[in-house]
Amino acid sequence: MTDPSDLARRVREGELRLHELDDHADPETAATARRLFVEGETDTDLDTVGEYAFAAETAEPNIENMIGGTQVPVGVVGPVDIDGGAVAGERYLPLATTEGALIASVNRGCSAIRAAGGATARVLKNGMTRAPVFTVEDVGEAATVAAWVRENTDELAEAAESTTSHGELTDVTPYVVGDSVFLRFTYDTKDAMGMNMATIATEEACGVVEDETPASLVALSGNLCTDKKPAAINAVEGRGRTVAADVFIPHDLVEERFKTTADAIAEANTRKNLVGSAKAGSLGFNAHAANTVAAAFLALGQDIAQVVEGSNAITTVEEREDGLYASLTIASLEVGTVGGGTGLATQAEALEVVGVTGGGDPAGSNADALAEVIATAALAGELSLLSALASRHLSSAHEELGR
Amino acid sequence: MTDPSDLARRVREGELRLHELDDHADPETAATARRLFVEGETDTDLDTVGEYAFAAETAEPNIENMIGGTQVPVGVVGPVDIDGGAVAGERYLPLATTEGALIASVNRGCSAIRAAGGATARVLKNGMTRAPVFTVEDVGEAATVAAWVRENTDELAEAAESTTSHGELTDVTPYVVGDSVFLRFTYDTKDAMGMNMATIATEEACGVVEDETPASLVALSGNLCTDKKPAAINAVEGRGRTVAADVFIPHDLVEERFKTTADAIAEANTRKNLVGSAKAGSLGFNAHAANTVAAAFLALGQDIAQVVEGSNAITTVEEREDGLYASLTIASLEVGTVGGGTGLATQAEALEVVGVTGGGDPAGSNADALAEVIATAALAGELSLLSALASRHLSSAHEELGR
Amino acid sequence: MTDPSDLARRVREGELRLHELDDHADPETAATARRLFVEGETDTDLDTVGEYAFAAETAEPNIENMIGGTQVPVGVVGPVDIDGGAVAGERYLPLATTEGALIASVNRGCSAIRAAGGATARVLKNGMTRAPVFTVEDVGEAATVAAWVRENTDELAEAAESTTSHGELTDVTPYVVGDSVFLRFTYDTKDAMGMNMATIATEEACGVVEDETPASLVALSGNLCTDKKPAAINAVEGRGRTVAADVFIPHDLVEERFKTTADAIAEANTRKNLVGSAKAGSLGFNAHAANTVAAAFLALGQDIAQVVEGSNAITTVEEREDGLYASLTIASLEVGTVGGGTGLATQAEALEVVGVTGGGDPAGSNADALAEVIATAALAGELSLLSALASRHLSSAHEELGR
Amino acid sequence: MTDPSDLARRVREGELRLHELDDHADPETAATARRLFVEGETDTDLDTVGEYAFAAETAEPNIENMIGGTQVPVGVVGPVDIDGGAVAGERYLPLATTEGALIASVNRGCSAIRAAGGATARVLKNGMTRAPVFTVEDVGEAATVAAWVRENTDELAEAAESTTSHGELTDVTPYVVGDSVFLRFTYDTKDAMGMNMATIATEEACGVVEDETPASLVALSGNLCTDKKPAAINAVEGRGRTVAADVFIPHDLVEERFKTTADAIAEANTRKNLVGSAKAGSLGFNAHAANTVAAAFLALGQDIAQVVEGSNAITTVEEREDGLYASLTIASLEVGTVGGGTGLATQAEALEVVGVTGGGDPAGSNADALAEVIATAALAGELSLLSALASRHLSSAHEELGR
Repeated sequence: MTDPSDLARRVREGELRLHELDDHADPETAATARRLFVEGETDTDLDTVGEYAFAAETAEPNIENMIGGTQVPVGVVGPVDIDGGAVAGERYLPLATTEGALIASVNRGCSAIRAAGGATARVLKNGMTRAPVFTVEDVGEAATVAAWVRENTDELAEAAESTTSHGELTDVTPYVVGDSVFLRFTYDTKDAMGMNMATIATEEACGVVEDETPASLVALSGNLCTDKKPAAINAVEGRGRTVAADVFIPHDLVEERFKTTADAIAEANTRKNLVGSAKAGSLGFNAHAANTVAAAFLALGQDIAQVVEGSNAITTVEEREDGLYASLTIASLEVGTVGGGTGLATQAEALEVVGVTGGGDPAGSNADALAEVIATAALAGELSLLSALASRHLSSAHEELGR
Repeated sequence: MTDPSDLARRVREGELRLHELDDHADPETAATARRLFVEGETDTDLDTVGEYAFAAETAEPNIENMIGGTQVPVGVVGPVDIDGGAVAGERYLPLATTEGALIASVNRGCSAIRAAGGATARVLKNGMTRAPVFTVEDVGEAATVAAWVRENTDELAEAAESTTSHGELTDVTPYVVGDSVFLRFTYDTKDAMGMNMATIATEEACGVVEDETPASLVALSGNLCTDKKPAAINAVEGRGRTVAADVFIPHDLVEERFKTTADAIAEANTRKNLVGSAKAGSLGFNAHAANTVAAAFLALGQDIAQVVEGSNAITTVEEREDGLYASLTIASLEVGTVGGGTGLATQAEALEVVGVTGGGDPAGSNADALAEVIATAALAGELSLLSALASRHLSSAHEELGR
Repeated sequence: MTDPSDLARRVREGELRLHELDDHADPETAATARRLFVEGETDTDLDTVGEYAFAAETAEPNIENMIGGTQVPVGVVGPVDIDGGAVAGERYLPLATTEGALIASVNRGCSAIRAAGGATARVLKNGMTRAPVFTVEDVGEAATVAAWVRENTDELAEAAESTTSHGELTDVTPYVVGDSVFLRFTYDTKDAMGMNMATIATEEACGVVEDETPASLVALSGNLCTDKKPAAINAVEGRGRTVAADVFIPHDLVEERFKTTADAIAEANTRKNLVGSAKAGSLGFNAHAANTVAAAFLALGQDIAQVVEGSNAITTVEEREDGLYASLTIASLEVGTVGGGTGLATQAEALEVVGVTGGGDPAGSNADALAEVIATAALAGELSLLSALASRHLSSAHEELGR
Repeated sequence: MTDPSDLARRVREGELRLHELDDHADPETAATARRLFVEGETDTDLDTVGEYAFAAETAEPNIENMIGGTQVPVGVVGPVDIDGGAVAGERYLPLATTEGALIASVNRGCSAIRAAGGATARVLKNGMTRAPVFTVEDVGEAATVAAWVRENTDELAEAAESTTSHGELTDVTPYVVGDSVFLRFTYDTKDAMGMNMATIATEEACGVVEDETPASLVALSGNLCTDKKPAAINAVEGRGRTVAADVFIPHDLVEERFKTTADAIAEANTRKNLVGSAKAGSLGFNAHAANTVAAAFLALGQDIAQVVEGSNAITTVEEREDGLYASLTIASLEVGTVGGGTGLATQAEALEVVGVTGGGDPAGSNADALAEVIATAALAGELSLLSALASRHLSSAHEELGR
């Protein structure tokens, strides 16, 4: 067997490059060698980074230049009761985070939702997108290409779907800006988050566009996708799952659990999440949905850079006659239960806790369920934070009256 | 010692609630008991979640209802050579991710930057913000409150700074919408990311506002902060560090490393990152800055929900006479080298690799350095992805000519 | 005949209210009486306001409480040569403005375009929208309503089209936010701008939605239309006409006409219109398209509040081997050649100058032509201003070199 | 005297160009000749365009290639009672529009406001901006330039103010994107809208920047101004006047005037103007503020292309115990009572009706007053439209109950 110290020495002496270690040793040994090398170069100690519990070879699809593992504490919230389109009944949700009080806050909301009889949740739209950009001669040619695309979606679907056994092309929308033509391809990628599937399928379809029209591909992604950037196109049209969750909580339960009133929570929501976000020029009209989304994404092997899109969420709160109605609608929650980081050891265990391991039956139902669970937990987080803000207000108001 | 199985049974039987376990056992035992309980309730096996390498008690400030650890593979990129305001010379950067090819891509960019003589980087602005919302009687009163705040910043600073030994209040800007008054407090929080410090200090200052003006606090955060939501106010005015990195790469090096031309990379950048993002109604004019930011945040104990703000970035590429100029400017990168998740075992080790452990000298310089390193790595990622997109274009163009 | 002074006296004495004058006199007399009354109340002289050249009764569909006319100087630009989808050849365009130098600037651009052999223009998309908002019980019901709408577009079209002899319902897209359901109805309104047509038709369709689903109408416009507010949904998906114009100008002509180079104009466009607008959080990536749109809208009887949407435009400039390519794409230009202010005397004359009086053959072609002419003139304005900015830059650069 | 027919013939024969006519005749004759020429070229009749009531020479600062006047009907709303910072008491406001029902709607709102005891209005901020863009070598140089600017505002003010007898430079804020440096100059331009004043002053200051720093000017406007484009920077930070108006209306008056309830109006506002605009990715959270702003701008000689910025407005409505509170806050209303189109005959008369002719005492107070009057009228328009929408809702709800 190869000695990691020896390998590290060879890197240090310029014989090998860091990423070439995988060609000279098994993944675990390569990681050890790399760790030794980095420790030497930076005069550090990476012992804990080296104490990872997953098998190094299982991480091969996820990482290069591996030196070990990052460990983040994971907690659990729930059970939360959900009447969803893909999930029914109680679920626990693991959340990994370094933000103290987050889990306690989400859990408080979950508990109130459960006491209120549960939340309703629905996936409203589903589609992973990829939007290449082409160049043409002028706007006349752009109009021709756009028209061709609109009339030949079937041909594009045939090409795109030839690359995948699961994915379906559901739409292609052309957008023209001068001599740039963007084609936004939308796919049903079932239980996969689907970014790679969409990219490969779109590349194939781009070949057809280049063959059949004068358009020339500039970049396989032209940012109208939009992946990992805040963008109104996602906030408006959705990407991945568009999912909503809501709950009705009677007045007495609001007061018991949240130490404030429906009216005060509604006011905090309006001034902060609606008016404040409006004034801020925001695409996120919520309190901290990204917190729950990020913690769930991390625990469950999702792509944490897509927390960006997961923050495109609107929270509404209204006082109804008998209590408080609250909802959270996330426009673009990109989730999957297969692929990505879902196969890593701790992440796979966490997905089992939610009850969404691997492909669902029917296909797509596990990812739908995951979206509904995350949306409900994020709603719980919204309720809890809003009421914390509102109750502080009430207490200060009370003090004022007492003066 | 308490038996975790017994504790789990007591939870199952309703004697104890999950979060109460911390009152009956040490953190590790409580986590074990919770894991046993959840395993029982969900018929799962959480063995790997239980094999965490950090000490359970060190995670107490970061998590509640802990059941164990989530493990994500971590790799390393670099060294990258940086001429920064707070960092000079070569640095390695650990990145934790589940997205295959990301580290290879960033590393390719780092290697090209190093070959080109290094990148330049600067923190351009620094300020953590918190913006409470108050209510007043009418817009006349709102104008009065806004005027009072503008004239009494010193008094507010005194109150705010009484709560912190490090933070300094640098600005308070009032924004009025009808009978809502938002006050955006900005702090220099030195080497801390500073969200908590800013919140506590602002709460104290809010007391002064309520005492001295007719304004009444509605919520300690009114979303003009803006925390963890995409918002133009951050993209325009910044939050945390506003940081930029750039590089000049001679033509021959561009072609050798990226298999394409400066012209093609510039065209891809313009059509995708500028025009495409414009058409998408985006606040992110980059290719995938969030990927690098997210992977660095995860490896280094930063708040991963703040990847949202980290995606407020603009990439520019121009062909100059002798080569390619590329830059990445991140408007709102919220980083810290103390607090948050920086004390967790693997994260602390990773921060040591970057050379930014704990408070800097002068105060704030470690967080500045971290911002400059992340920006440079993200620039590397931009260059690498853009050139991959552009070279595919070239190859397809070549094939076309060959027909 | 009624004496206006007497009528004015009766208003002054509280016998009549201002708007009731129309019931007691012909439009002209009522306007005179109103003018006399206002002159008396405000101690002013409205003689010129009273010297309007249109017949008062022709303004009845456009105004209430009329006191006379506002007069704005109108000039002319052109001819500009256009190879469009609905217009071919040379057109003059009247522009009404109070901004000195605007017409000279646009005209300089028109002249350059003509010298370059003309512009290309295309209407890329056409659809007037109206988006009512409904309320439902919860997100489960919202999903049901959205699904019903997707499956029953025909029934909605039947209802909507029963109210109009020209308009066609081309799409209904549901958007859900919690317990609010927005339905964005899109119509082909032919040569009418179509806002009223769309509103009336949508109201009828709303009745069907309320009859067939549990949804209850809250407001006939729910701001996803979006009318007269800057909104990404229009910038992305279009409203009214999405129209683009472009031109290629050889290097020598660029230098002759614009006293600068293609390279300098392209740089100014990139830094100002792309990067600058990106940093500003803008939905308008152009220099001053709104100027040309506003002046044309005013001269031609369009709705000037819709200049807001007309500013959702992207200008691109690139240096090609032989010269400069420039384009302007306006996402949401709402124009009509029938209805609105098109029947007023001076406006009707101006529409005749453009050659787009009344309904086109085929229906819609006159409004298409108008959109293409305005887009081309706005492109001319972009070129002219950008080159003015760029040439100043060059001159300062020259001075620098001369030092 | 020159014969216009003869001049027109000379243009037709290519002897003269259209814009050269001003060199061969007085403005009125030149306009007549141009009109004759255009009539001939386009086979049209421009009689009414020729019947303008202002003196042609007075329009010289406003127009080139003049052919006559565009006439738009103008009506009046009011009186509306305002408790403002710069206006106190009752004012009439002329509005020019072609949109039927607009004036009736605004007037209904004005009448309700008056019955409720009047509105409160305040100018909250005042500053006209111009933001040139410079280029530098790299981000290191960018940081240096930004620092220099922050430390040398006085020197920049001296240069800028040397060009104007009225304007004052109040702020310069640097924004850096890679090798582009944007400097946003803010001026108090008193009673002038101030765009030209700001441009000229900024040009002078740019000379200083180029002399004292390595920055090189690319364009005198870099779109961070932002002029005539929808932009978050204006919605957040303001441009021209940031102005707010509000009113409290008791329940019985709401029901009498608006045939609906405070609760229903508040619900329509929340779902449409807040949630709907949020979902639309809008920068305008109002119903139709642009309508009132546009009509006032047209009647009063303002720059109608700046209606774009005038639509950056937020409407709030809340049910308070005794009635309805409503507010409208316009972030960037660019108004002036001197310069621009304010000197044209009908416009000058209209400004007199409002009581804001020429420069105010103190300087700036007339423009402030104008902003407050327009904001109040726009608030009236919001109330009226929202209640119309809400009452329709109620009636349909009533019908439902009746079934």
